[in-house]
Amino acid sequence: MTQIKSDYIFFTNGTPNTYKVKLILLELEKEYGITFESRNIDISKKENYSEEFTKINPNKKVPAIVDQTGEKPLIVFESVSILIYLSQKYNIFLPNFKTNPNENSDVITWAVWQAANLGPAFGQYFHFSFYSPTVQEYSLHRFNNEAQRILRLLDDRLSVSPYIGGKEYSIADIASAGWLLYLNHAPIFKATKERFPHLFKWLDLINQRDAVKQVNQNILEGFKNFNPTGIRSLFTNDPELINAKAPVGIESVVLKYDQ
Amino acid sequence: MTQIKSDYIFFTNGTPNTYKVKLILLELEKEYGITFESRNIDISKKENYSEEFTKINPNKKVPAIVDQTGEKPLIVFESVSILIYLSQKYNIFLPNFKTNPNENSDVITWAVWQAANLGPAFGQYFHFSFYSPTVQEYSLHRFNNEAQRILRLLDDRLSVSPYIGGKEYSIADIASAGWLLYLNHAPIFKATKERFPHLFKWLDLINQRDAVKQVNQNILEGFKNFNPTGIRSLFTNDPELINAKAPVGIESVVLKYDQ
Ligand SMILES: N[C@@H](CCC(=O)N[C@@H](CS)C(=O)NCC(=O)O)C(=O)O
Ligand SMILES: N[C@@H](CCC(=O)N[C@@H](CS)C(=O)NCC(=O)O)C(=O)O
Repeated sequence: MTQIKSDYIFFTNGTPNTYKVKLILLELEKEYGITFESRNIDISKKENYSEEFTKINPNKKVPAIVDQTGEKPLIVFESVSILIYLSQKYNIFLPNFKTNPNENSDVITWAVWQAANLGPAFGQYFHFSFYSPTVQEYSLHRFNNEAQRILRLLDDRLSVSPYIGGKEYSIADIASAGWLLYLNHAPIFKATKERFPHLFKWLDLINQRDAVKQVNQNILEGFKNFNPTGIRSLFTNDPELINAKAPVGIESVVLKYDQ
Repeated sequence: MTQIKSDYIFFTNGTPNTYKVKLILLELEKEYGITFESRNIDISKKENYSEEFTKINPNKKVPAIVDQTGEKPLIVFESVSILIYLSQKYNIFLPNFKTNPNENSDVITWAVWQAANLGPAFGQYFHFSFYSPTVQEYSLHRFNNEAQRILRLLDDRLSVSPYIGGKEYSIADIASAGWLLYLNHAPIFKATKERFPHLFKWLDLINQRDAVKQVNQNILEGFKNFNPTGIRSLFTNDPELINAKAPVGIESVVLKYDQ
């Protein structure tokens, strides 16, 4: 009995950084008929620290992919590197460097900007909001301020450009969408249409894509099961802290810090 | 009187993220005779927030470059995006995607990994060590732990690969070098040859390059003038805090947290 190999193995956990990769894989599935199989790595159970997964990603984080279409399997990790890899391979969502250096470099710049700014800042903000076992006022403020700065910057960018990377939908949009699609469903960062009109106009625009619709659905399902306890156990052994209500739950964070 | 335009304008401030760009510009100067002029943006004087500089980099940070070699000036910001741009343009320090997809993707992955992991973690660690107006024990520990994880990961990587991105010196090395060259001069993160032998072997290797020698010189000069006061004034208006000794100076950080 032969088993048919999928083109890609996709290591995922239904989290913002993994949704970036899901967004592009779904587009490639639709456009080029590629196939992929998802393997769930439960980070709340520290499955990302296993020896097996460390061979895939020495950084021990999801997402990662294995490209099985070539002679030898090719591993790529870091969500934005995966986006660059796939967009180069299929010549989609990234203008060609030789023929369009300006457009190429704008897209790469905004994708890398996401990896170096939006991603880390939102990640830290979520840590200090939901997972840190005790409330850290200074750091909560610090990363909320940084998140606000980033949303304002994107709103400004989208007031002069229809998409984040330029005139077309690109991996710059996909990179930021992994996180920003959450704004469709929850008022995190007090991010409303009124405060960030151009950002929400962009959201409306990309929400129309099939791949984006599917990930929006995944995010909603994830919200139903949201529970910081599992992840908090990564940061403390104290059972009282692990089982406590999130030190700053969505409810209080949104009211107290998001202004 | 005509003024001869340099090929590149380089917006800099003698900081880790700007050294990445200096490292590649010096290599290109030597190899291809490109010319560049450095413009200092004093971030302790908030010059990066000026209207003029915001037009160059809406993210209001150094480094950024203006490529003046084409018909129209082309702006690139985000250090790792600048590295990708220049390496693609001169076909150096980045294997070609079409002919060497594996090697290309390894280099991009480790360069993006730097932007998303090493850069933000070291940046936060330095903030909490030198610039935060009050000591934040939790966050200092958190980012020290993350820095330690990153150094261990790099040491493991360099035990199986001569360079960070693979067999050759590449933008993956340059990206990490912007920060790691500091280890040549100061025992930050308790990073010693004994604890991280492969990392220091790699340092010895790249220290031989002329561009790296020059940046090492710049770092040493920077150390002589190091004073957190100017930068701390970005985070507080309280003159007592601004003028206080760094809450956790190099001396105490190294002893207390770097283990
Ligand atoms: N810069 C990385 C970040 C990946 C990341 O932080 N992944 C999270 C889930 S969204 C994770 O695996 N966390 C587990 C851990 O850090 O232990 C990327 O963009 O791929
Ligand atoms: N991800 C950015 C980080 C740039 C960055 O943080 N630059 C610092 C100096 S090393 C800066 O300009 N800080 C000024 C500020 O944030 O106000 C890059 O790699 O270019």
